[in-house]
Amino acid sequence: MLTLSAIEAARARVAGQVRRTPCTPSVVLSELTGSDVYLKFENLQITGSFKERGACNKLELLAVSERRAGVITASAGNHAQAVAYHAARLGIRSTVVMPEATPLIKVTSARRYGATVHLHGTNYDEAAALAATLASEHGYTYVHPFDDLDVMAGQGTIAFELLEQVPDLQAIVVPVGGGGLLAGIACAAKEREPSLRVYGVESQTFPGMQQALRRDRVSVIPGGKTIADGIAVRRVGKHTVDVVRRYTDDIALVDEEEIAHAILLLLEREKTVVEGAGAVGLAAVLGGYLPVKGQRVVIVLSGGNIDVNLMSRIIERGLVKTGRVVRLFLTLPDVTGALAGVTQLLAELRANIVEINHDRAFSGAELGQTSIELVLETHGFTHITQIRGALAERGYPIRDL
Amino acid sequence: MLTLSAIEAARARVAGQVRRTPCTPSVVLSELTGSDVYLKFENLQITGSFKERGACNKLELLAVSERRAGVITASAGNHAQAVAYHAARLGIRSTVVMPEATPLIKVTSARRYGATVHLHGTNYDEAAALAATLASEHGYTYVHPFDDLDVMAGQGTIAFELLEQVPDLQAIVVPVGGGGLLAGIACAAKEREPSLRVYGVESQTFPGMQQALRRDRVSVIPGGKTIADGIAVRRVGKHTVDVVRRYTDDIALVDEEEIAHAILLLLEREKTVVEGAGAVGLAAVLGGYLPVKGQRVVIVLSGGNIDVNLMSRIIERGLVKTGRVVRLFLTLPDVTGALAGVTQLLAELRANIVEINHDRAFSGAELGQTSIELVLETHGFTHITQIRGALAERGYPIRDL
Repeated sequence: MLTLSAIEAARARVAGQVRRTPCTPSVVLSELTGSDVYLKFENLQITGSFKERGACNKLELLAVSERRAGVITASAGNHAQAVAYHAARLGIRSTVVMPEATPLIKVTSARRYGATVHLHGTNYDEAAALAATLASEHGYTYVHPFDDLDVMAGQGTIAFELLEQVPDLQAIVVPVGGGGLLAGIACAAKEREPSLRVYGVESQTFPGMQQALRRDRVSVIPGGKTIADGIAVRRVGKHTVDVVRRYTDDIALVDEEEIAHAILLLLEREKTVVEGAGAVGLAAVLGGYLPVKGQRVVIVLSGGNIDVNLMSRIIERGLVKTGRVVRLFLTLPDVTGALAGVTQLLAELRANIVEINHDRAFSGAELGQTSIELVLETHGFTHITQIRGALAERGYPIRDL
Repeated sequence: MLTLSAIEAARARVAGQVRRTPCTPSVVLSELTGSDVYLKFENLQITGSFKERGACNKLELLAVSERRAGVITASAGNHAQAVAYHAARLGIRSTVVMPEATPLIKVTSARRYGATVHLHGTNYDEAAALAATLASEHGYTYVHPFDDLDVMAGQGTIAFELLEQVPDLQAIVVPVGGGGLLAGIACAAKEREPSLRVYGVESQTFPGMQQALRRDRVSVIPGGKTIADGIAVRRVGKHTVDVVRRYTDDIALVDEEEIAHAILLLLEREKTVVEGAGAVGLAAVLGGYLPVKGQRVVIVLSGGNIDVNLMSRIIERGLVKTGRVVRLFLTLPDVTGALAGVTQLLAELRANIVEINHDRAFSGAELGQTSIELVLETHGFTHITQIRGALAERGYPIRDL
């Protein structure tokens, strides 16, 4: 079982090796949620996530002979980068096994930090199997991403920082994948301050911890698509569940839309880049799924390694949902000057045209008419209503699809 | 003239009212630049920029009668938000005049913080003229965004934090619009540590400070389009130039591509959202325009108020420039199954198809052939070369436009 003293020892061990990240109050998010919100910026660790804490503690604890033999892990994500970085720093050889379909950028990242990378298998389980084989063949120490007491103890060091950084703290909200981060934080926080509330948050597609607690056993869940790839874990840890059951108050679930919205809010209002897994805590508090109204609460932003492509798509969808981009279909007489009239009107209304597509064949417009698709940058739903009204008034009918 | 003691007094005045933002070393940027880079995160101020420091100091210095009468400023940007926020906090009525074409989001922002907003004129000068008129009519105190000793003194408080946060600091790199931030920091830094180097950076389209120093007088520059709207100032300050001339070592200029690249790098590698004006310092160091190789240097990230629309466009352009998105034009036989062959091949090559467009009429393809435009997500230029090779080998000729 994980103990307070193990986490205290971890703290001394990782001090100076892992960043003490900032934890600051958020005026905007406090207004939006009705809680007194503080954010813990673990996305600002050197490799972009909290995983360094557990990896660093584990590696520091290895015996000289184990360091000489080297370490191995299976991961395509933040844990791999954390192990690679801290192993290199400590002069330990590291090997990482990733599924074959891993995006090249993650492979490159682990290699840049100094790991030997093997690509193997179609999923995490197959990669992990090869890692286990290589570990026993070569005498490497296997560094599990979460189900390891030393790793959990490392993650728990965050709790001590929070108690120092936030006066009168009442609750902590933590993302859950395999459960290592939640187990570490909950144990340290509750042992130090039993009145503190600690909550976990999972994505609806991977509710493994919630199920394990309810059914009182760990099983493999089917999982699904999620933008929170960092917590897409099909089987939570055996050790982590034991610790979480003892120290955690509740687990909430959030859906994909809620995660995307939280990512966008952090970008726009907090000027910080958080990956899907790192945004679930905010999503749960915004959704009102946790009893933290009126309380001083820390939301742990666990990591920031999001693909910028995905970020760009989240921004675009967010703009549509908040009325800052709109698509309109208009029917125009197919004569010279018709489009000029529309664009002039839109300029007067201060709507910026992003895209125009003409469609004569498929739209169902009559002969002698043309149908156009307009994509506009707008200032919100009131502005869109104003634009629709003005277009209709000038005789440009809008077709709603 | 600005003095060290004025800035020291400002520091005591704004303490607890304005955030002492984090300043942390960057491993990635140090490797990329060959300097020992620290970042000062002024984008994490509550209203998203350093402007709060000057506004807060100015407002705190007002006499009781001036506070009662209220304040006014002309600005569409960070200064307006800073004045609105701190005036409301101090119970002072504030009025902001913005040009009519100001994006609604900035108007809403200033109103949310409690300001009365007037929209007037087609540019900053016309807005400023109305603000001056209203100031004299109603007895409001005019809060200039930069050419004011109290405002400059407030901005200078950053320098003291840097000297405490960064041991053995050698150089500071600061964005320049009107020159208030540079004047304040340079005066405080040089008076305390004369061996420190302080550099300013402007966008190539608005090189007002560089010109003022060279020609020994302030003139209105024509300006142009820039994504660094926060430093798009056509006339730098009279007082700021005097201070900058005395205390600053050099001014560098950066172009739009360099600014966009710096924004993207900060997003991807530092997990932080910076506006164009806030990214010019990094752009100048990356470009090698300042003599800071091998030195310990702080780059001031002055603000983070960037439109997410613009951010999304910068990401997309950046992906193209780094080989992570590519557009290819292929000629295919216009028969069933031809496209299936191509998509199968691309799946094997792990290139994700983002967009496909068919074009029979305009491409110059022969009858019986079709031309397609493919937009693919790729893993870099090596991957693109591999894809081009494989397509050509299988008999799908690529047309370069």
